[in-house]
Amino acid sequence: MTYCCGILVRDGIVLVADTRTNAGLDNIATFRKLHIFEKPGERVLLLATSGNLSVTQGVVNFLSEGFENPDTGEVENAMTASTLLQAAQLVGRAVRRARMEAFNSAEQSAGVSFDVSLLLGGQIAGGAPRLFMIYTAGNCIECTPDTNYLQIGEHKYGKPILDRAVNFDTDIYDALKIGLISMDSTIRSNLSVGLPIDIALLRRDAFQLEVSTRIDSSDEYFRDLRERWSKALRAAHMAIPAPPYRGRAP
Amino acid sequence: MTYCCGILVRDGIVLVADTRTNAGLDNIATFRKLHIFEKPGERVLLLATSGNLSVTQGVVNFLSEGFENPDTGEVENAMTASTLLQAAQLVGRAVRRARMEAFNSAEQSAGVSFDVSLLLGGQIAGGAPRLFMIYTAGNCIECTPDTNYLQIGEHKYGKPILDRAVNFDTDIYDALKIGLISMDSTIRSNLSVGLPIDIALLRRDAFQLEVSTRIDSSDEYFRDLRERWSKALRAAHMAIPAPPYRGRAP
Repeated sequence: MTYCCGILVRDGIVLVADTRTNAGLDNIATFRKLHIFEKPGERVLLLATSGNLSVTQGVVNFLSEGFENPDTGEVENAMTASTLLQAAQLVGRAVRRARMEAFNSAEQSAGVSFDVSLLLGGQIAGGAPRLFMIYTAGNCIECTPDTNYLQIGEHKYGKPILDRAVNFDTDIYDALKIGLISMDSTIRSNLSVGLPIDIALLRRDAFQLEVSTRIDSSDEYFRDLRERWSKALRAAHMAIPAPPYRGRAP
Repeated sequence: MTYCCGILVRDGIVLVADTRTNAGLDNIATFRKLHIFEKPGERVLLLATSGNLSVTQGVVNFLSEGFENPDTGEVENAMTASTLLQAAQLVGRAVRRARMEAFNSAEQSAGVSFDVSLLLGGQIAGGAPRLFMIYTAGNCIECTPDTNYLQIGEHKYGKPILDRAVNFDTDIYDALKIGLISMDSTIRSNLSVGLPIDIALLRRDAFQLEVSTRIDSSDEYFRDLRERWSKALRAAHMAIPAPPYRGRAP
């Protein structure tokens, strides 16, 4: 599986993505799921992918190399979209096309799921930072200040901390930290999500990435974060008084 | 949906179960999912249920009123099992039977899932406290000191805290507290799990429940626990230093 989360705050966008893929528990590999399309000064697009790897790789290839828009006949890619909404719609078309190709070449592989879901965040000059989730059907939803994060893949383990800790006014580095805590909770409870983690931080109106790096098991900050978080949770539940219930309700 | 967790510690067993059922988001109701079969001084059985309500109610009815064992011809119920393993196997037979009846009477309701899963914890004189999970197929697994908790229903949100905080040597009231925190995380992040919560605490060799009560939204301890936990989580992530990442990896 996969876990990726994207957080939209006033100051920009953060994406956190694991890299573990698996076709069965005995077939685990590392693949980058966080893809960057950048033209400094003009646009940064961040794409996080989950689901069938052949389809998501197909989507990334379409966005890099371009593919024809049947309505206009023009070849479009991640660099040609003039707004982030158009980029999200382009991702949707790429998903439909990559899935169709997978279906067509897979008559014999009944039972395989070609479902995918993706996050697309970024900013294109002239527009605000925006964050979208694109579904298997190619449709999309957009993050708003009311619900300022989106998740794909194994989202449940890491949701409680996001629900509690993050809002549109959260500092962007705090948002990154909370994204890492959310990832840590997921990694700890689900074997199919694993290190290394790719992270990206795009500040509003910067039009180039402020952070783009990979965190592996030797990363000191992440090791310290995991340890502090574990200790703090232990301290937190130990500080809560013991339940007063005794005996039975009538 | 449902969320129930059972925790086995050296001193006994704790069960925590929500009460929300839903057939679609627009059809929500409250049903008890934690059932008690008790003969003070001899046995206490605690059964938590999730899944298709007609099947789980069928199971509870079979355990209360008894049903024939086809191998022996004898009528068995929760009071006749002489060990907890036998009781778990009895629950398994009740599940198979209740599902079969549901299938037979449901020719027209294609697409309805009759799947269930259950937790059975307790102690019968002569044996130790034991905790089982019974699956739809009627088979079961048992909690051990290595993995001393089991969950049914919406288990992912509340798993990280259990993975971190609970082990076989945890004090039994701490285990109850952690079960309540796990429930709180689930309720907060998933609408299909809701108050009130039923809780039960069975101390080893007591052969009667030490705690059996219902927690609703007016419960002061639980309100305080939720608030303290939220505050502690906020404090915990705020105490972690900001991520040091800046710039990009080569």
